[in-house]
Amino acid sequence: MEEDLGWGDVTTDSTISIDAKIKGFFISKEQGVVCGMEVCKRVFELLDSSIVFEILIKDGQKVQKGNVLAQISGNARSILKGERVALNLLQRMSGIATAANNYSEAVQDTGARVVDTRKTMPGLRILDKYAVQTGGCYNHRFNLSDLVLIKDNHIKAAGGITPAINAAKSKLTHALKIEVEVETLEQLDEAIEAGADIIMLDNMSLDLMKEAVQRVKGRALLEASGNVALEGERSVKHIAQTGVDIISVGALTHSVFAMDISLRFL
Amino acid sequence: MEEDLGWGDVTTDSTISIDAKIKGFFISKEQGVVCGMEVCKRVFELLDSSIVFEILIKDGQKVQKGNVLAQISGNARSILKGERVALNLLQRMSGIATAANNYSEAVQDTGARVVDTRKTMPGLRILDKYAVQTGGCYNHRFNLSDLVLIKDNHIKAAGGITPAINAAKSKLTHALKIEVEVETLEQLDEAIEAGADIIMLDNMSLDLMKEAVQRVKGRALLEASGNVALEGERSVKHIAQTGVDIISVGALTHSVFAMDISLRFL
Amino acid sequence: MEEDLGWGDVTTDSTISIDAKIKGFFISKEQGVVCGMEVCKRVFELLDSSIVFEILIKDGQKVQKGNVLAQISGNARSILKGERVALNLLQRMSGIATAANNYSEAVQDTGARVVDTRKTMPGLRILDKYAVQTGGCYNHRFNLSDLVLIKDNHIKAAGGITPAINAAKSKLTHALKIEVEVETLEQLDEAIEAGADIIMLDNMSLDLMKEAVQRVKGRALLEASGNVALEGERSVKHIAQTGVDIISVGALTHSVFAMDISLRFL
Amino acid sequence: MEEDLGWGDVTTDSTISIDAKIKGFFISKEQGVVCGMEVCKRVFELLDSSIVFEILIKDGQKVQKGNVLAQISGNARSILKGERVALNLLQRMSGIATAANNYSEAVQDTGARVVDTRKTMPGLRILDKYAVQTGGCYNHRFNLSDLVLIKDNHIKAAGGITPAINAAKSKLTHALKIEVEVETLEQLDEAIEAGADIIMLDNMSLDLMKEAVQRVKGRALLEASGNVALEGERSVKHIAQTGVDIISVGALTHSVFAMDISLRFL
Amino acid sequence: MEEDLGWGDVTTDSTISIDAKIKGFFISKEQGVVCGMEVCKRVFELLDSSIVFEILIKDGQKVQKGNVLAQISGNARSILKGERVALNLLQRMSGIATAANNYSEAVQDTGARVVDTRKTMPGLRILDKYAVQTGGCYNHRFNLSDLVLIKDNHIKAAGGITPAINAAKSKLTHALKIEVEVETLEQLDEAIEAGADIIMLDNMSLDLMKEAVQRVKGRALLEASGNVALEGERSVKHIAQTGVDIISVGALTHSVFAMDISLRFL
Amino acid sequence: MEEDLGWGDVTTDSTISIDAKIKGFFISKEQGVVCGMEVCKRVFELLDSSIVFEILIKDGQKVQKGNVLAQISGNARSILKGERVALNLLQRMSGIATAANNYSEAVQDTGARVVDTRKTMPGLRILDKYAVQTGGCYNHRFNLSDLVLIKDNHIKAAGGITPAINAAKSKLTHALKIEVEVETLEQLDEAIEAGADIIMLDNMSLDLMKEAVQRVKGRALLEASGNVALEGERSVKHIAQTGVDIISVGALTHSVFAMDISLRFL
Repeated sequence: MEEDLGWGDVTTDSTISIDAKIKGFFISKEQGVVCGMEVCKRVFELLDSSIVFEILIKDGQKVQKGNVLAQISGNARSILKGERVALNLLQRMSGIATAANNYSEAVQDTGARVVDTRKTMPGLRILDKYAVQTGGCYNHRFNLSDLVLIKDNHIKAAGGITPAINAAKSKLTHALKIEVEVETLEQLDEAIEAGADIIMLDNMSLDLMKEAVQRVKGRALLEASGNVALEGERSVKHIAQTGVDIISVGALTHSVFAMDISLRFL
Repeated sequence: MEEDLGWGDVTTDSTISIDAKIKGFFISKEQGVVCGMEVCKRVFELLDSSIVFEILIKDGQKVQKGNVLAQISGNARSILKGERVALNLLQRMSGIATAANNYSEAVQDTGARVVDTRKTMPGLRILDKYAVQTGGCYNHRFNLSDLVLIKDNHIKAAGGITPAINAAKSKLTHALKIEVEVETLEQLDEAIEAGADIIMLDNMSLDLMKEAVQRVKGRALLEASGNVALEGERSVKHIAQTGVDIISVGALTHSVFAMDISLRFL
Repeated sequence: MEEDLGWGDVTTDSTISIDAKIKGFFISKEQGVVCGMEVCKRVFELLDSSIVFEILIKDGQKVQKGNVLAQISGNARSILKGERVALNLLQRMSGIATAANNYSEAVQDTGARVVDTRKTMPGLRILDKYAVQTGGCYNHRFNLSDLVLIKDNHIKAAGGITPAINAAKSKLTHALKIEVEVETLEQLDEAIEAGADIIMLDNMSLDLMKEAVQRVKGRALLEASGNVALEGERSVKHIAQTGVDIISVGALTHSVFAMDISLRFL
Repeated sequence: MEEDLGWGDVTTDSTISIDAKIKGFFISKEQGVVCGMEVCKRVFELLDSSIVFEILIKDGQKVQKGNVLAQISGNARSILKGERVALNLLQRMSGIATAANNYSEAVQDTGARVVDTRKTMPGLRILDKYAVQTGGCYNHRFNLSDLVLIKDNHIKAAGGITPAINAAKSKLTHALKIEVEVETLEQLDEAIEAGADIIMLDNMSLDLMKEAVQRVKGRALLEASGNVALEGERSVKHIAQTGVDIISVGALTHSVFAMDISLRFL
Repeated sequence: MEEDLGWGDVTTDSTISIDAKIKGFFISKEQGVVCGMEVCKRVFELLDSSIVFEILIKDGQKVQKGNVLAQISGNARSILKGERVALNLLQRMSGIATAANNYSEAVQDTGARVVDTRKTMPGLRILDKYAVQTGGCYNHRFNLSDLVLIKDNHIKAAGGITPAINAAKSKLTHALKIEVEVETLEQLDEAIEAGADIIMLDNMSLDLMKEAVQRVKGRALLEASGNVALEGERSVKHIAQTGVDIISVGALTHSVFAMDISLRFL
Repeated sequence: MEEDLGWGDVTTDSTISIDAKIKGFFISKEQGVVCGMEVCKRVFELLDSSIVFEILIKDGQKVQKGNVLAQISGNARSILKGERVALNLLQRMSGIATAANNYSEAVQDTGARVVDTRKTMPGLRILDKYAVQTGGCYNHRFNLSDLVLIKDNHIKAAGGITPAINAAKSKLTHALKIEVEVETLEQLDEAIEAGADIIMLDNMSLDLMKEAVQRVKGRALLEASGNVALEGERSVKHIAQTGVDIISVGALTHSVFAMDISLRFL
């Protein structure tokens, strides 16, 4: 907020009288899943508690081009000052929710869940993750302290999958799950043997994934990762049909199309 | 940073010994314009001042798939902890710089400049604006206090373009420029008459823009805005050829494709 | 606030009962222009939202010795704790507004504006600048990012006035004005030629200023600076009568006489 | 610092090359007592640790017009960015130290000490108090928690001097002194009787002060307060000669003349 | 608070519906002196201003096992999120108040006061000191700036008790008291002679303390310190009976037994 | 740190010369497990980077009365200012580590682990948890976001153990474990059936715990909680011998005996 206001909004303060009132509408300019309405409302409340912001479409609802999402009225200066920050957040969060919704629908007849990753913008993670949920996908871990995720580099440094898992088990709280990233079926077997709770299949072919599902027989959760798309050969739907439990998609939060939403005044 | 580390990186702390060393390379996985190398270096320095981060490709240089951008070596725990944050910033900033470079090249034989807008992510504006410059475009104003930008809503509230400009001139410091957004040639004439320094042509057709350039004859800067694309009928190049001085493109910072860059360890 | 309270106001907490009520008046002890009443009210509100603070004289009004500026009532402990901070701010801001009013009145029959400078106390700039406006003067730029102000040292380093202006124009946003500080008429000519928006006449004699006004003929704003006083040979009035547009006075905010205002309890 | 830089110093960044070096001198433009050299050095160090700032005149030394106080050299951009903040602090602190020095010299043949008050600018108290010491005066309490100072309003609320002192003694730590403000000799007697450590004689005539000194006979410290000037009937010297121990002067920090000091580059 | 919530309370958010209501009681599980009720109320208010928290037992009252201290009702998610932080504070503060009460009662027929020390946990000092008062003891100084406390190490460095006291007197504000730590009666005599306000008898035997009281005859306050217990040979009561004014007990805040208090829901 | 220094250490600053040097030793006054040496070193480094702090006994080592833990030398003022904060942290952390060590040794021949709880002091959790590890025990979860812990109140609100677990599974990330608190064997069966990862046996008798171990047969981790002591009928050893996996002990961090450690100067 401060970042945007600097020393104040010189245009608004000089051209709009201090007690002018204004009324406006947030309107979708394309179809998508709305997300961020409460955050948007909060932005205006923080700026001026007398602003009335009425939410007409709740987070998670689908809208078409031209729907009225919310109605705002109150002091003109305050509303014009908050406009840009509110729209930026609303457009980004709705963009994420819309993408998440597409992925979610693609896997709906399978048992798989689509999850996000830690590839979020610094400072915005909690909002990004909320938008993912709103669109019907799930969150992976939030940060580096709520899951043990042993990747290639950890395995190298620890001297193998088994020693890495053993090290984690002997030093850490029993309350955390342990996930291991594997690239081959041999590594998969070793991880299962060593007691991993979740196994990430990194960039595996669809055939190998099917084989992995057969071998594991529910002894651990299987997560597919890498090069997941909405359409095509390696679509999220095809991956889901291999029988994996989880499919992680970094693009959900790191390549975001802002949804087009505008604020129109009467 | 804190956001990502939470209570610490449990995986790294349990599987990697406290004094293990590691060496790795930042590699581009697609072509583009690199941006954020210094920021990336700073992230690691803040985490552990003994990390050696050698920049091989400076901000602003074009790279192909497979180029080595930087080399990092030092304590394995520290490097693995900073990896995600550093990559997120580097990928976003390089994505913006690459897009800016495309726009910049499209107008290079005209006298026009492409500029960004305030449509940036909260908290990241200074980095986003830097990436725009790195790609060869220019920054518009930074915040609401460094330019008077009179838009439709201000004009309505002030009772017309002339009263709005007069109000700004009589109340504000002489050190700020005044920009007015217009939609018709009549408004353009009125803004020129009232002494605007910059005039924004909002969503005007190419023909109207040409006409505007004729009328103004250098008495103010003309800025084209709205629905600007890289290709097609209304491409940035076609707009530049109308003779306008400035073309503002919101998409530079609000619909960002992260450039694919990875960190590989030996 | 914290700075003043430390671990708490031991005197008030030990000698005044926790629910004692008190009523008092802010009274001017000398004539001047009042400024800071809203800030003062805010200080008490932050301390204790149940305090009733009624403003009787608004910011910008002139008062004589003995006028009642505001009435305060509420919890005695809270009021006594906020007293010192509130009075310090009110006395300083009213002191600045009073000085600004004197300067403003001195130029009122000319076309010139008196403006302040960046010579404010760290942390108080926004309040100081507001007090300047309240007294009838104008603000110059707020900080180093909202105007290009090329001074002697920049000119030396850039290799002359023309290269300095060209550098600024080619690298910076079109949205900022460019001001150049000159000491001679030759420099003035060069600055005009290079396209400066504002020209600061640094410590020039009255005669040279008149000559400068003739030469420029409205192509740029002229700002007089240096050794400006209320009275005497080089008074603000005499300078204004040379025809310059702007007169900047550092003393407005960097040598402040606190106006004598006290808080009297019934 | 941030307040002054905003989004960056656009003038310096566009006109000065990134690796230009500069060398300059801080010079006194009038006589006075220098204060703030270390703070000034720190400002530049925080901005750019490679700046070399050599202090030639230490805090507390008297200078004449034209003395060189310090020499600075290093990156031109960094130095120009810090210039204004450094000079504002140096000018204010030296102004305070100079005034404090005048007061201190006026009482030097008496046993009295001149002290400051809490009338400082918010955020700057620690620097203001340091400047007072540098000029040869003493500090009164720092904040509301390190001395019990019972004033008129506390006495009214507590039902008299004796009950107020008793309340403080029974509730507070033994480690704090108790000061009482009195206006008459009867109140003085009551305060002594009740065990006050320090007694403030508020706006008393010189004759009454002498009488007070006689009565108290060293059983408490006596502090004169109100309308103290450097010259005239009620000068600090005359007050000191009555035999009081302490003389508090609010003007030391609340009506400050900035000392004229400039930064000249080669 | 943040420390405890991390990214949110995943259990509560997933198992309790967003508008569920709950009602509960804070109940003492052992006898003691209650302290922290207002702080506890504030914790919940900050979390959710619609929570109703009714205090039934005020800070400072003694309770038995099974007493209901407070009643809370409101949104179930909010209450469950604040539970742990509120209980931790309430249990610690009541533990301190209970210990303070035991010490206070032990000296109640003597003229001595029991005081705490600076041995508090970082960040919690103001709450710890408040709990000490609530239990009937007194606070010593709050921090290093509100009392001159000359200890063994200062004496060594300054070259003796007299030079140390003289240094403090000549450099510091008159508003602070001076306390000196002594180990022998010779040191005691020197401290009295040099004008100490308070003298700390460090680890002296009961007999030496009695002797010290005789010698000082009220010219300074005497403080006993070191190895004070509730019971036994060197009990606080025996020490108080020697006639010293102050007894400082570090254990009050640095070895705390949390009082057992629970929150039971209907 | 700030909390302790207030406006500065008036004693040290007035009695110790600004360049005096000092050397001292940290000495244990009783036996225990040392913890906090690195934190202690960091406190002094932050205060004055020229202080030399040599750790002689590392965190986790057992010491006897009279052992020298560390040696410190450097500027006397800086060392004396940091003394209290450093000792408070060292004493508390060593107290916790010593207690943790006693618990850890008591269960060493069983397969059980002793873990802490969230009952830590606000602001100190990360240090408290580290001290627990240092003494040989384990950490339970860090905060409310890294484990689903379904307690009595959640079960009531969700309508039973099964619906509560199902709600958590359907809404939350797959990356978190689910723990349920049970009081009877029937609840235990239900929790196992519903797929809990960890089951907390709340205040169960030793016989019931043995029975629980039999029934669960390794399908979930079992955690004993409530009224755990070092000695007696319900000692941590007896509980461990029932075969449970985890024993949680709140007293580890919420009723802390500071270990007696002092700083002696030469």
